[in-house]
Amino acid sequence: MTRDLTIAEVRLTPILVADAPLLNTQGVHQPYTPRLIVEIVTADGITGLGETYGDAKYLEPARSLAKLLTGRSVMDVNGLFGIDLAVDASGVEGRTDAGGLRGVQSADKLRLSVLSAFEVACLDAQGKALGLPVHALLGGRLRDAVEYSAYLFYKWAGHPAGVPAEPDEWGAALDPAGVVEQARGLRERHGFGSFKLKGGVFPPDEEIAAVRALADAFPGHPLRLDPNGAWSVATSLEVARELGDVLEYLEDPTLGTPAMAEVAAGLRTAARSAPGGGGGGRRGSLPLATNMCVTTFGEIKEAFTRDAVQVVLCDHHYWGGLRNTQRLAAVCAAFGVGVSMHSNTHLGISLAAMTQVAATVPDLHHACDSHYPWQTEDVLTERTAFVDGRVAVSDAPGLGVELDRDELARLHRRWAEDDGSLRDRDDAAAMRTARPGWRTPVMPRW
Amino acid sequence: MTRDLTIAEVRLTPILVADAPLLNTQGVHQPYTPRLIVEIVTADGITGLGETYGDAKYLEPARSLAKLLTGRSVMDVNGLFGIDLAVDASGVEGRTDAGGLRGVQSADKLRLSVLSAFEVACLDAQGKALGLPVHALLGGRLRDAVEYSAYLFYKWAGHPAGVPAEPDEWGAALDPAGVVEQARGLRERHGFGSFKLKGGVFPPDEEIAAVRALADAFPGHPLRLDPNGAWSVATSLEVARELGDVLEYLEDPTLGTPAMAEVAAGLRTAARSAPGGGGGGRRGSLPLATNMCVTTFGEIKEAFTRDAVQVVLCDHHYWGGLRNTQRLAAVCAAFGVGVSMHSNTHLGISLAAMTQVAATVPDLHHACDSHYPWQTEDVLTERTAFVDGRVAVSDAPGLGVELDRDELARLHRRWAEDDGSLRDRDDAAAMRTARPGWRTPVMPRW
Repeated sequence: MTRDLTIAEVRLTPILVADAPLLNTQGVHQPYTPRLIVEIVTADGITGLGETYGDAKYLEPARSLAKLLTGRSVMDVNGLFGIDLAVDASGVEGRTDAGGLRGVQSADKLRLSVLSAFEVACLDAQGKALGLPVHALLGGRLRDAVEYSAYLFYKWAGHPAGVPAEPDEWGAALDPAGVVEQARGLRERHGFGSFKLKGGVFPPDEEIAAVRALADAFPGHPLRLDPNGAWSVATSLEVARELGDVLEYLEDPTLGTPAMAEVAAGLRTAARSAPGGGGGGRRGSLPLATNMCVTTFGEIKEAFTRDAVQVVLCDHHYWGGLRNTQRLAAVCAAFGVGVSMHSNTHLGISLAAMTQVAATVPDLHHACDSHYPWQTEDVLTERTAFVDGRVAVSDAPGLGVELDRDELARLHRRWAEDDGSLRDRDDAAAMRTARPGWRTPVMPRW
Repeated sequence: MTRDLTIAEVRLTPILVADAPLLNTQGVHQPYTPRLIVEIVTADGITGLGETYGDAKYLEPARSLAKLLTGRSVMDVNGLFGIDLAVDASGVEGRTDAGGLRGVQSADKLRLSVLSAFEVACLDAQGKALGLPVHALLGGRLRDAVEYSAYLFYKWAGHPAGVPAEPDEWGAALDPAGVVEQARGLRERHGFGSFKLKGGVFPPDEEIAAVRALADAFPGHPLRLDPNGAWSVATSLEVARELGDVLEYLEDPTLGTPAMAEVAAGLRTAARSAPGGGGGGRRGSLPLATNMCVTTFGEIKEAFTRDAVQVVLCDHHYWGGLRNTQRLAAVCAAFGVGVSMHSNTHLGISLAAMTQVAATVPDLHHACDSHYPWQTEDVLTERTAFVDGRVAVSDAPGLGVELDRDELARLHRRWAEDDGSLRDRDDAAAMRTARPGWRTPVMPRW
């Protein structure tokens, strides 16, 4: 073997990608959202790809990290996490992420969110250099396709008048009928068999009605509701009582492990006292899922020992990559906690990474989330297809995706030409363009 | 790449290797102990090596598994664990392993102990085929050497008279002076900096005296005592009180998670009420380590939520291989539980495997255990050396070891010619050759 796996160059390309006016409890998606594309080039000229958040708070440490990688081996992914990487979290520490809705921010979370893109890029480069798919580097795939759910959003027909934006073809969804129509469209186009509604936008009664409408339209299909922690414990328990018979799980109804533990305990009590002992319909008590109170390894112990969550939604971006995703899955399996995948706005590189690692997780019993169907733009030469709601697990070397350099350049120009107003995702600021005076709601909102 | 990673052949070679008359609470090591050498050969003629227990209860499922592997890829290690492998545990289910002292036996433990050797052999073959060390396949090494402790045993000068056996040069160690002399010899030869005494052989007072003698002879060096669960909770707490100031940890003082949890709780209480709050000397309370009450992923939840153990000693043989060792390390890290490595009688293939995976574990704060210095025979062309108590992490392809086929054949002949009396390790039966009427002690013994 005369291969040289040394890192010769690291290229970072911040971009702005079009995004639809999707609503959440904090505000609305910007018309363009920042992402960072990472390319790690070996001495042999092999390029590995990674993708992560593109806001300045990620971009700056990514630039520092890029400088430290030259001369290291792309094989050395464990070592990435020992690199002394300065991260300035002073502006965000302890605050909930305005865009990502990923729990309370910390320097360590920022650091891992940056490292993840480099880890994925190293794995892609490894795979290409060795002629192996990434899943083989992770021990081999256990399935030939990974199931995703339809990610439903309340949305406007378009971004606010006067704001430059790309059009989308989905129209408004602001009531039960609109949500069902959106679900039908996504199912028709991509074959999704389960549905997740991003809630926390309207008062709980309206969202309960929307989930009921989905249950009527798609009987027997798994449904989920995720208000991003917008509810009190009491409201969470009320919603659970209303929807317990149709929900697969309830996602982050309330903020923080202590409150989630209270909800979980309340659900268990309700299940025990229900006729037949099954308050959650088919199962025992309704499971709670999270991507907000368990977002780092340090948060696991409290949540698991208190039985606060029954499903952890992993996001390889903020857990620190694909090997850490496997580690998280192992921790969950040991505690009988389910595991699935969270998503934030992402492109095809990350969809490929999610699919490769999800294919290696033994106990993947829930369809993963993905925003990808909402992204009309991508940096790949070929869009990834969902067939019957599933993405086929590529056996091509690396992630099995190829960069479209023209498109990358175009989206980077958009970023370069932006006056700075869109380079840091801020859903509340985006909301203010339509509703002056809008502020991030105080939680619990209901 | 025109490589063919398909498994073309699997060779299983049961052997009997010489073992010293080492004493434990169940009896004494046999003069020869069974091991199984696994060779997985790819279509390209690359051979991967693995090693595990060689008793009939392992050998039979290993033979079944070997037949199922032809045509699979050596890359597919995750898939190994999904193979439907019939294991007959009817003879051992629920009983403590007479030789291995590895907790209560089950079909699942037998299954994983077999699979581990195949997983390691696949990883060795992968590494050789790809020109990469096994640690690189596991994400890369975080250190260039792995520290081991000196594994001290009470022992006889030789096996019982009239029993065919190989001589050993270590003499008897049946009292504090003998234990210290053995420790000096092992340290002189291999440079070990920490010491573990296998206890549970003599009444606790004698073993306390031996550890005290070690502390006097090697001041400041980490010491451990492991009676394999031979003590009651009260005795465990007494020994901890006597030795808390010199022990790095106390290993499996008593059997089962409930009893370990009681001891741990007692130690915490003692630490809180001690002057200065530090009943364990340098730290807070004396940590408990285990390779008996946490030996499978299914046993973790109870032990960790009850804070019954503070260090898990992983044995890749019974946890199911190197990737599972990494998974266990991830679970331990998430719960702030330390991780290190257990050992049973093993040869150089397993020492290489232990060293490769240990090199990838971030939080390895204790020296690993190894019986290897007691093994005068090996199936490798070159013995692995300990330098300053450490084994260098090989960067050669695969495990970095080479099979000595002549020696393998010789040790297999010994197995083939055995009348069956040694093919299943039974330390109690070995003890009966010296002490007729000896029976496995009822626990707790003291």
